[in-house]
Amino acid sequence: MADDGLDLIFSPRSIAVVGASRHPGKIGYELVHNMIINEYRGRVYPVNPKADAIHGLPCYPSVSALPEPVDLAIITVPAASAIEAVDECGKKGIKGLIVITAGFREIGGVGVDRERELIGLVQKYGMTMIGPNCMGIINSHADVQLDATFAPTPPLRGHVSLITQSGALGVAILEHAKSLGLGFAKFCSLGNKAQVSLNDLLNAWKDDPDTKLIAAYIENFGNPKNFVRIAREVTKKKPIIAVKAGRSEAGGRATASHTGSLGGSDLAAEAVFNQTGVLRANSIEELFDYTMAFSLQPLPEGNRVAVISDAGGPAIMAVDELSAQGLQLAEFTEATKAAMKAWAPPDASVANPIDLTPEGSLDDYRRALEAALADPNVDAAIAVYVPPVRTDEADWAKVVWTTAQQFQKPVLCNFLGRTTDSPGFMELVNHSVPSYLYPENAARALAAMHRYAGYLKREEGTVRTFEVSRARAGTILDEVLGQGRTRLSEIEAVEFLEAYGITTARARLCRNLDDAARAARELGYPVVLKAVGKQLLHKTEMRAVVLDIRDERALRLEGMRLMHRMETQGVVPDGILVQEFISRGKEVILGMTRDKVYGPFLVFGLGGIYVEYMKDVSFGLPPLTDQDAYRMIRAIRTYPLLAGVRGETPRDVDALAEAILRFAQLVLDFDQIQEIDLNPIESLETGKGYRAVDARVILTPSDSQG
Amino acid sequence: MADDGLDLIFSPRSIAVVGASRHPGKIGYELVHNMIINEYRGRVYPVNPKADAIHGLPCYPSVSALPEPVDLAIITVPAASAIEAVDECGKKGIKGLIVITAGFREIGGVGVDRERELIGLVQKYGMTMIGPNCMGIINSHADVQLDATFAPTPPLRGHVSLITQSGALGVAILEHAKSLGLGFAKFCSLGNKAQVSLNDLLNAWKDDPDTKLIAAYIENFGNPKNFVRIAREVTKKKPIIAVKAGRSEAGGRATASHTGSLGGSDLAAEAVFNQTGVLRANSIEELFDYTMAFSLQPLPEGNRVAVISDAGGPAIMAVDELSAQGLQLAEFTEATKAAMKAWAPPDASVANPIDLTPEGSLDDYRRALEAALADPNVDAAIAVYVPPVRTDEADWAKVVWTTAQQFQKPVLCNFLGRTTDSPGFMELVNHSVPSYLYPENAARALAAMHRYAGYLKREEGTVRTFEVSRARAGTILDEVLGQGRTRLSEIEAVEFLEAYGITTARARLCRNLDDAARAARELGYPVVLKAVGKQLLHKTEMRAVVLDIRDERALRLEGMRLMHRMETQGVVPDGILVQEFISRGKEVILGMTRDKVYGPFLVFGLGGIYVEYMKDVSFGLPPLTDQDAYRMIRAIRTYPLLAGVRGETPRDVDALAEAILRFAQLVLDFDQIQEIDLNPIESLETGKGYRAVDARVILTPSDSQG
Repeated sequence: MADDGLDLIFSPRSIAVVGASRHPGKIGYELVHNMIINEYRGRVYPVNPKADAIHGLPCYPSVSALPEPVDLAIITVPAASAIEAVDECGKKGIKGLIVITAGFREIGGVGVDRERELIGLVQKYGMTMIGPNCMGIINSHADVQLDATFAPTPPLRGHVSLITQSGALGVAILEHAKSLGLGFAKFCSLGNKAQVSLNDLLNAWKDDPDTKLIAAYIENFGNPKNFVRIAREVTKKKPIIAVKAGRSEAGGRATASHTGSLGGSDLAAEAVFNQTGVLRANSIEELFDYTMAFSLQPLPEGNRVAVISDAGGPAIMAVDELSAQGLQLAEFTEATKAAMKAWAPPDASVANPIDLTPEGSLDDYRRALEAALADPNVDAAIAVYVPPVRTDEADWAKVVWTTAQQFQKPVLCNFLGRTTDSPGFMELVNHSVPSYLYPENAARALAAMHRYAGYLKREEGTVRTFEVSRARAGTILDEVLGQGRTRLSEIEAVEFLEAYGITTARARLCRNLDDAARAARELGYPVVLKAVGKQLLHKTEMRAVVLDIRDERALRLEGMRLMHRMETQGVVPDGILVQEFISRGKEVILGMTRDKVYGPFLVFGLGGIYVEYMKDVSFGLPPLTDQDAYRMIRAIRTYPLLAGVRGETPRDVDALAEAILRFAQLVLDFDQIQEIDLNPIESLETGKGYRAVDARVILTPSDSQG
Repeated sequence: MADDGLDLIFSPRSIAVVGASRHPGKIGYELVHNMIINEYRGRVYPVNPKADAIHGLPCYPSVSALPEPVDLAIITVPAASAIEAVDECGKKGIKGLIVITAGFREIGGVGVDRERELIGLVQKYGMTMIGPNCMGIINSHADVQLDATFAPTPPLRGHVSLITQSGALGVAILEHAKSLGLGFAKFCSLGNKAQVSLNDLLNAWKDDPDTKLIAAYIENFGNPKNFVRIAREVTKKKPIIAVKAGRSEAGGRATASHTGSLGGSDLAAEAVFNQTGVLRANSIEELFDYTMAFSLQPLPEGNRVAVISDAGGPAIMAVDELSAQGLQLAEFTEATKAAMKAWAPPDASVANPIDLTPEGSLDDYRRALEAALADPNVDAAIAVYVPPVRTDEADWAKVVWTTAQQFQKPVLCNFLGRTTDSPGFMELVNHSVPSYLYPENAARALAAMHRYAGYLKREEGTVRTFEVSRARAGTILDEVLGQGRTRLSEIEAVEFLEAYGITTARARLCRNLDDAARAARELGYPVVLKAVGKQLLHKTEMRAVVLDIRDERALRLEGMRLMHRMETQGVVPDGILVQEFISRGKEVILGMTRDKVYGPFLVFGLGGIYVEYMKDVSFGLPPLTDQDAYRMIRAIRTYPLLAGVRGETPRDVDALAEAILRFAQLVLDFDQIQEIDLNPIESLETGKGYRAVDARVILTPSDSQG
């Protein structure tokens, strides 16, 4: 697509509607209708061989008959004729294309071929295309005023831009947004994303002065790595609020490994959100709730919130949710409290949350809100109002917005009982104060603002590249694959990891007990003995591991018992592994699995038998910055055990962070790796590093690699 | 209060409004006004010395001047005169009372005295009273038609009864419910609950034929034990859906113990909900969402859900939430799939979720919904509809409700873009199909119905009483308290627990190492040595414990080292505890803490150092049934480790359940106990029981007991 391709589509000077229709209800009619009634500022040319004029516009029999090579052609003819129409557009020199027509990849079979053909034409003629199978676009800029959708009514003009992978849902969002007073700058229904992608639009809207925030309904990220790169840039400039569908499709691949069983696409998606600062809305409702708050109010400087209400119940509910979301109830200064006591109604509570009771007057409400917002201990306020009191709701709303305007602090309202056409609600949103039907929603939206404010302040960190023995590691993988294997042996895994500077427990592979005794003397007691070999995938169940052997006598005795156990199970081990025994470490896990969409993603967490049930893990999508690595470590619930609390020894977190970064470098370097499980890694005390004690490295069979 | 007291209040034949007023806006006016315009079927007597008539009703100068001792007096005069008015009512022989007037306990100081005086009068005259400081009551029954509130408009008539501890919120709920088409049987604003409580109303409405479900806004349970007993009976007959405010007030007491740090009132509240089957709504929005579903639709027989939609996006969001809530996407029978393929639009997906695409006709929608509901693999359906298609929303709504009516399966709608006055929404709710603005809300409401259906089927179990040595246990506590101590020594704790049949690791308190060696021979090696004494509260930090001593030589050596360590720390132990060493147990925790509101509540969970961070625990409020005990065990996330999975030894869960029940009996028997922490309990393999290895028993100082 050309650099200015999206400009042609969103700000065209002239448009051809191929398949324009005279019949209301038809897409080709509604499109032209919407352009006309919204007073599109450019020239519209309906194309339809069977009509003379549509909506008063002269009609053209074909694209080739158009008086000019328009900036944008919108294709609405049936799929069977669409390819020909696009070819005609190309020949005419038209560079911008929106293909509304469905019947492409989404129907499979013939549709897939048809889409391939479409892409071929787009490439051949150097066109930029949105769709196919989409609902169109909107640009509400005063110089353009283009509603190129077949939505029933146009949205309000505003500063939100919306990208959607579900056209129907997108149009429904525009509809509902109108009832909330939310206005839009741009809208794009992506359809099949045969060419223009979510990432292209984010990139384009990053510097769009009309777009103050981007809302998105996402079903997949397309190229997640690009998304991470682009979204990271965008969110430093403006918030992206996104609903990501398909949470429950997570996992899919049923694999026995811990990393695998914890993994799955939605976890990778979660990592994407964490690393990019994109705010994930967990429901469509949250998408609206957050969008309303972000588009209307400034971000809070901190997490201290004042709650002002005329009724105790909803105020308590707001406080509960604020607290659940990690925000704090602000502690008013003594001056604020004293000032409020001077005029507050006798039954009112002037501590936070302020409950003015239904006896409070409008003036009381104004003074309370003003005092709270003026208090240096307060970063934000939630104003709660339960209507059936003896004041007019619009008057109350006016008190709130006029007071809010005096301060650079966010004010959100809970106006229980409001309907979308209530005068109080309209008074609020028309003056930039978001209003929520329920107190919890206001609290959650404020928490999202606080999270984003924190993201803007956080250090991105840098992606470090370590000096490693890439060639040596590559050789090991080649050998394994060359032998038709997909799993590295214990010793191979150790060498492979050590090539990237990942510390493993020192180990020697021995042929017999004499060898083993010699190895143990070198490594130093205590040691671990493991029978190893291809038949020994489940060592614990086969009792092929003996821990904590303290001297040579014990080694020889336990070694003989071990060999006997193997014999009775009919197993011939390849050898005996002697490994240093690490007894005082804290067990963590570091794993990687390759998702077919996201590529490799990392898991870090609490290790041992609990990992599967506690799921105390965090995720990362490489490349990772050093800060990303520390964030992964700090994100687990048992992090205090690593940091050292209540008699727990502090662990070498710096070493773990470096291990994560080296691991990220490793998995990016070798596409052959399907899965790695370092479980457990014994994390040692500060300054002493860590040891990966057990490593499981699985490769993709070479014949299945593209 | 008299048995028929609530009947007098909710179905009075005659009412006196004390403080009736001629001035709109005054409570005394609005009350009379609401009674009149809602055509209350009984006789209303306004009482006001300064008026002749109010609203056409002859006015009486005083209660004593009333022509009859009315069933119900409603007090609206200011607090200062309210006591006198109530006294007059008592003298007149009036037995039913609603005190709207505020200025009692809620304002503290003089209000507390005033409330005490009020209760005295109510008791003296044998009255039944709701309030003070409340918003009144409603009974919409056709024979009564009483709206005794000052809410702006009456609610719709229906089968929901609402109890609220926040009057203002209650009235706002009634208001908003009207816009959702939700109708009410009864309403009660409890106010200060000086006499009539939440529990009284639940008890009364349990058998009320007009009340099909009870919704409640709860700030506290009053007497939680009574609540548990009553709510358990009610929920077997009809659902109770409750919002419980004050989640974030949890904890409060900062105590160093694990049980204490995990505890706190809201956790006890959670135990109350679990044990009673009361459905907790986590927000006011959920209260509405659930109430709508339960009041309009039948309960699902199982967890298999069909999703029918005209747009993919919201359908996926619904599926995501269904899955997150533990419901299943139904697998259609082959017959259903084949039948659907016969008529479905070419692009439609006829697998579940069914996406008819915007091309689907109304007939397609009807056939798809019908086929799904007729499928024996389907227990419930969510019908998703995104408006901007070329059909009328009311026509679609009619298709949904007419189809839903043919089946005894719940159907919930997600009608994105609907406003409360939209014709499609009204068409649905007027025909008993709940409709939600967002797909996730429909999914959550359906999940709540499934949970309640499961509760109705679940076994309550029985409360077992074990034969125990209560006297022996009591003697130990008396001795400890008699000595001015509040903490039991190790040996005392062991004896105390053993008196109730709770198995502890066998132990002997020894004076010297010779004693210890003898004790170890009796107990059998391996053993644990612990230095014990008052100075030794933090044994691990003081290195006062030696684990896994395997023979007498080691015992004497480690014993000497231990004594030396104590000496260097300046500690003189009371003795040495020799305890059997349990090496192959799985560590769990069983604890109890006494909440000042809920009384003793129990915690069960994963033990060891993880307990504090993983919070993998469940809660129970004694008395517990045997089924409650098993549910507590099965509720923790690491339960599979106890049940025995992947090479893990199955643990003696029956023995743990019995331990929980004996523990519950113990904590109910002794009010002196403030806190017990059995951490860890080593859970042994099936048939071998468990051993409590460390017990911490803390008593309430005797002088602080009421």
